[in-house]
Amino acid sequence: MRTMKKDITILGAGLVGSLLSIYLSRRGYNVSIYERRPDMRKEKISAGKSINLALSERGWRGLEGVGISDDIRKVAIAMNSRAIHNVKGEIVYQPYGKEGQAIYATSRGLLNCEMMNLAEKSGVTIHFNERCTGADLEHGIARFENHDTKINSEVKSDLIFGADGAFSAARLQLQLSTERFEYSQHYIEHGYKELVIPAGSNNSWLIEKNALHIWPRGGYMLIALPNLDGSFTCTLFFPFEGEESFASLKTEKDVHDFFNRVFPDAVPLMPTLAADFFANTTGSLVTVKCFPWILPEFQKQRKPNGDAIAQLALDNFVEMRDLVGSDKFLLRKKIEARISEKYPDKWLSLYSQVTFSPHIPYADALSNGRKQDRIMGKVMALDGIEEKWNSEEVEKMILNLIEVQ
Amino acid sequence: MRTMKKDITILGAGLVGSLLSIYLSRRGYNVSIYERRPDMRKEKISAGKSINLALSERGWRGLEGVGISDDIRKVAIAMNSRAIHNVKGEIVYQPYGKEGQAIYATSRGLLNCEMMNLAEKSGVTIHFNERCTGADLEHGIARFENHDTKINSEVKSDLIFGADGAFSAARLQLQLSTERFEYSQHYIEHGYKELVIPAGSNNSWLIEKNALHIWPRGGYMLIALPNLDGSFTCTLFFPFEGEESFASLKTEKDVHDFFNRVFPDAVPLMPTLAADFFANTTGSLVTVKCFPWILPEFQKQRKPNGDAIAQLALDNFVEMRDLVGSDKFLLRKKIEARISEKYPDKWLSLYSQVTFSPHIPYADALSNGRKQDRIMGKVMALDGIEEKWNSEEVEKMILNLIEVQ
Repeated sequence: MRTMKKDITILGAGLVGSLLSIYLSRRGYNVSIYERRPDMRKEKISAGKSINLALSERGWRGLEGVGISDDIRKVAIAMNSRAIHNVKGEIVYQPYGKEGQAIYATSRGLLNCEMMNLAEKSGVTIHFNERCTGADLEHGIARFENHDTKINSEVKSDLIFGADGAFSAARLQLQLSTERFEYSQHYIEHGYKELVIPAGSNNSWLIEKNALHIWPRGGYMLIALPNLDGSFTCTLFFPFEGEESFASLKTEKDVHDFFNRVFPDAVPLMPTLAADFFANTTGSLVTVKCFPWILPEFQKQRKPNGDAIAQLALDNFVEMRDLVGSDKFLLRKKIEARISEKYPDKWLSLYSQVTFSPHIPYADALSNGRKQDRIMGKVMALDGIEEKWNSEEVEKMILNLIEVQ
Repeated sequence: MRTMKKDITILGAGLVGSLLSIYLSRRGYNVSIYERRPDMRKEKISAGKSINLALSERGWRGLEGVGISDDIRKVAIAMNSRAIHNVKGEIVYQPYGKEGQAIYATSRGLLNCEMMNLAEKSGVTIHFNERCTGADLEHGIARFENHDTKINSEVKSDLIFGADGAFSAARLQLQLSTERFEYSQHYIEHGYKELVIPAGSNNSWLIEKNALHIWPRGGYMLIALPNLDGSFTCTLFFPFEGEESFASLKTEKDVHDFFNRVFPDAVPLMPTLAADFFANTTGSLVTVKCFPWILPEFQKQRKPNGDAIAQLALDNFVEMRDLVGSDKFLLRKKIEARISEKYPDKWLSLYSQVTFSPHIPYADALSNGRKQDRIMGKVMALDGIEEKWNSEEVEKMILNLIEVQ
């Protein structure tokens, strides 16, 4: 009988790989991480291409489980509402949930460094500058090339986890070696570019600190999340091609003219706008799906929820860049909030299901959300809904539709 | 100014690669083919995993263009109709088109050998046993490993064509190196297995020679295509998993019991059925899509048609294994045939558009076919359509729907 600790190899020391390594190590596995990049705790990794992190309840649960949530809370900034900026520069605040509920802007780098420290304290070994060049999954062998020494090595373990991102080397091996492997990678037409609103004097925040700022413009949007030093990290989500697109903004003047026209209140806050626009890379946004996964029970539990969160993310992107800017959407949210407050056991908004209710599976949230869409589609189509939105008639209609839908 | 002949590398010496090489060579290019397998003209390649070929007008055009259609016609067998076998062993013949129209059962191997001969005669060099191990598409470099000598080589050319099948090494390189590359591979739940109906005495055909035989059973089907030697190559299309599936037939008795129950008239014709069933591999059926392609003009012209023929193939699979066995479908075909004969400029069946009309783009055929489906859906829903299918009322209804749909 084998009583030795099982060896586990994890590809990637990002947020997922680091956290997973701590959990597995504490369960008694012998865990090694192989990371393609250098140690970000020692070398400055080039920034300018990372969408800021907004931690919700599910994220906190993950951190609580390894005991670092308190440390991270100290360096996170609560965002209680969306701050919607229209073209005139007017701002409407949409609370994310009930009083006291918020999502938390957190530095991805800082969180990652903390988790790597904790992983090493938990007995995990992290190997940096090791690029995975291939694998023999049947025999648990992963192959690496060291970026500095160019030395090739092979690592044999009982289990290999791929936490190596959108272009996972582990997943590529599954694609190449698995019979009847389902695979798709689909890019949306939008890319993203990081920009910045610097801090004011004495590290003050020049726009509301406790909000996620959105400039929704239908086909594209700008967002801004607060940082501890008073700055905001901005991200422009924008089509690659077309009349208004990354391809169409060719000069610094193009950028200024465009921003002045569509994000006029943001421009005075962004002194390095045009320079950043051309210095920072344009990231792409891909959805990858595959089947089967390696561990059958994990696949059974997580694949439907993985597919669901991919869909929820795309839906949320459309909501943020387009819907939140419309009066109809704001009215719908007002009606939902009213029903939810009066009948909390009958109506919980999709956003709250995903963000503040960590035990509702994503697949259930998606399905509940679709049902709410059908109900609210009928409600919003009522003649004069703008006037009677808080009437007994509308309330009864919704309660009835909840039963029959 | 460069006046040298451009060098072209083609991966794969199958039907597509061989034919393409002849066309390109005759246009003045310097063409080399690299083929992973040995020369099938010299070594017997293991059979037992190839769905028989049925050549239609588009195929003949391709062969006519290089002048080998007459040679191939001599060894092809016309199939004028589908021969539909029901569970009682009764046969209904459904003509494919008008009098004299047929698709042609052709030996894939023989056709491939002929085309390789012609390619070499046209000046093409074919390198066998050369597996593509990678490529640098930007610089036109393809890398190979020889199966026998294990020697690695690099080939530089002006253009590389991937004609290397479902798991194309060329396409994999595009996936790995192209920004924002759209890619999907999707397997249907069915696999296929080759079986055989041997020739009768004196190389006679034991069932109708000039037909494509189908045993449609809803969720699966058996088909049989005639060979020159009197035999038929059969293919069973069958789910991998489930109650009636490759997984559920575990013993020779299971196979015999199943075939006796669902294909009773075929069993006496298949003396080696159970042995073949377990000796032959089970093939899988995959649809691969990707974007962008290498040549912009080719992509513009062919990508929509490539997507369309993939969809048409899936639709045809459902039609063959399920619909052709139903009375409703036969009635629909009868109505369509009547309208098509009276108004040939207004109605051409989807099958004829694809099979006998080589100039209708597949994307147009698919769109026309969808329109016909909508029209016939309304017609077939008429009360008493079984009685009045050839009435003036129905005819007028269809002519009207053609205008308004």
